[in-house]
Amino acid sequence: MNYDELALELHKKYGGKITIALRDTELDATKLAAYYTPGVAAVSRRLAEHPEEMPVYTWTNNLVAVISDGSAVLGLGNIGPRAAMPVMEGKALLFKKFAGVDAVPIVLDAHDVDGIVAAVTAIAPSFGAINLEDIAAPQCFEIEDRLKAALPIPVMHDDQHGTAIVVLAGLINALKVTGRHSLGGIRIVVVGAGAAGTAIMRLLWLYGVRNGATPEILAVDSHGIVSADRTDLNDEKRKLLEFTNPHSVSGSLADAVAGADAFVGVSKGSLLTPELVATMADAPIVFALANPTPEILPDVAAGTKIAVLATGRSDFPNQVNNALAFPGVFRGALDHHVRAITDDHKLAAAAAIAALVETPDAAHVIPSVFDERLVKAVAAVII
Amino acid sequence: MNYDELALELHKKYGGKITIALRDTELDATKLAAYYTPGVAAVSRRLAEHPEEMPVYTWTNNLVAVISDGSAVLGLGNIGPRAAMPVMEGKALLFKKFAGVDAVPIVLDAHDVDGIVAAVTAIAPSFGAINLEDIAAPQCFEIEDRLKAALPIPVMHDDQHGTAIVVLAGLINALKVTGRHSLGGIRIVVVGAGAAGTAIMRLLWLYGVRNGATPEILAVDSHGIVSADRTDLNDEKRKLLEFTNPHSVSGSLADAVAGADAFVGVSKGSLLTPELVATMADAPIVFALANPTPEILPDVAAGTKIAVLATGRSDFPNQVNNALAFPGVFRGALDHHVRAITDDHKLAAAAAIAALVETPDAAHVIPSVFDERLVKAVAAVII
Repeated sequence: MNYDELALELHKKYGGKITIALRDTELDATKLAAYYTPGVAAVSRRLAEHPEEMPVYTWTNNLVAVISDGSAVLGLGNIGPRAAMPVMEGKALLFKKFAGVDAVPIVLDAHDVDGIVAAVTAIAPSFGAINLEDIAAPQCFEIEDRLKAALPIPVMHDDQHGTAIVVLAGLINALKVTGRHSLGGIRIVVVGAGAAGTAIMRLLWLYGVRNGATPEILAVDSHGIVSADRTDLNDEKRKLLEFTNPHSVSGSLADAVAGADAFVGVSKGSLLTPELVATMADAPIVFALANPTPEILPDVAAGTKIAVLATGRSDFPNQVNNALAFPGVFRGALDHHVRAITDDHKLAAAAAIAALVETPDAAHVIPSVFDERLVKAVAAVII
Repeated sequence: MNYDELALELHKKYGGKITIALRDTELDATKLAAYYTPGVAAVSRRLAEHPEEMPVYTWTNNLVAVISDGSAVLGLGNIGPRAAMPVMEGKALLFKKFAGVDAVPIVLDAHDVDGIVAAVTAIAPSFGAINLEDIAAPQCFEIEDRLKAALPIPVMHDDQHGTAIVVLAGLINALKVTGRHSLGGIRIVVVGAGAAGTAIMRLLWLYGVRNGATPEILAVDSHGIVSADRTDLNDEKRKLLEFTNPHSVSGSLADAVAGADAFVGVSKGSLLTPELVATMADAPIVFALANPTPEILPDVAAGTKIAVLATGRSDFPNQVNNALAFPGVFRGALDHHVRAITDDHKLAAAAAIAALVETPDAAHVIPSVFDERLVKAVAAVII
């Protein structure tokens, strides 16, 4: 189905997707005088003395800011803040629909790290948590790091960590389905070393380390395997060498894929050809997450030895969808007054998502985004 | 009535005052794919080419940011952004309740002019209009001026202009009630030369000029009449001399009040004594707007020659309440795609509010904030 026309029509008909409503719908003059002047002064005086009680008396207890500079929106690239608004407002819709979380879309006319960090820091007291979204790599890494250090509320760049959580969840089940018992000795090739790819590699590696079974991860970008002998690496890619490419190999995508147990693509459509698949290990796992065209389409994969295929699309089995993670992660962070979303939270969230699939098989390594147990299961581990 | 306990209780019970709701409440998987990926990409592509259509496809068509740095909150002073939140959220409640406008409270951890201007400029593409609130003078003047110059959407500091609109509306009717036919030859003393006082003086003067009947306005601050021979004036107060104090008088509050036709106080409780009132012209008009205690209380005023008394309180006649102006002003600005709220808009809004009182008398120079014609009447002139 082509959703373009329906999308334009619905957005125009409703004039956007979200609106403000009142918590107390039975207002009279007395209540108005309590909610606004003169009564509200008592609440402000209280918070002036006890700012930590802000969630008790204001809507920040349930409030996430979805913030983007519009520099890496979906597959559309740097389209700017105004064109990014429909996506951020859509995310606010998902927050409400799936987790009952109030989310406000904020698009920023700020276009460097310092400007973005300053703007988000300035508005941060207005919110209970911050979801960074669709900010280009490598700037997204420094922006998130600096905001996490500066702010007393949870900050998460969802393109990185939401994706990583869901990929790990799917991989945990895909290992079972393919008779692999741990990540120990397994080679995973991750193609695409931007925001999502970097976070995926880091979380997979961490999962292995914590379970005493570190995988061999190879990062591949448009110039081939990320290796120490390359002279074109930026700081962020150089940092990947701390936990990828343990045997210091160099080479092309084909060199990386040959013999690999798992392929995770956040790159471009149809990059993984049947010929490349043929060089992989037996019963390989493929997460082909490029949108809208995955690195290998299901009908092409059907003619190969791929044992488990996941994509980013809702019309194929095993959809890797951030909406599996972020609603529950923020629901839990708000409800449990968590001040930061940690690596432990991400690992636990992935395990919780994976566990919802009682008997995984090739077409079921990831639960449905409509699984009603999902938000509660994820929120429960963000403690 | 003491609203403090009720205010704390209600805020705690509901956990704040506003929430996010969905415009389209009948969501299914198909619609979700139109409101978010993959469909939303079509809307983003459209806005990348036609950013001016943002109000057609996003909630910005009905959206105001209520922004404060918490530096001059109610009568509480500089209590900071977190303690200011209940007031800004309360304003959002009024926006929704009175005018159906979606408003998002934003409190800023930014505390100088440059920082505040930068933060608001950065987030501005997220909103259809900006209501600045409770920002201390004199910074508020430069902040508003710079934002108005920088942004393509309406920006209004409500403490200045909302108050000025309502004071002018009340004064138009008070002149009729006291048999004064214009501002020509009338002396108005304005006590308090901060945000509200400055805007009131400027709008009253402009109203006179436009009607060929310029009043004599005297600004009074804690050091007496604002006059050219004073050496303690900041830039903003010096600018007042462009349209106040035409005869270059100097002196105290008492010197200013003697012979005055009208007194507008945005200063401190009980400052206008019966003895001072006795020195005013016959049938004087008094707007005693200090909160919670007006410059003169109604029962004290009853023993004087005051002909019309207005206060800021809902429990006395003639309440000067910004809620008479701002909901309609922003409703009109959004509906009519106005890019700036001009002096003409403010003058027209005051006239529209005044006209709602068909037969003004001493206790009825200002309509009720619950007058159902109000928002429509004001919005109609913001064109």
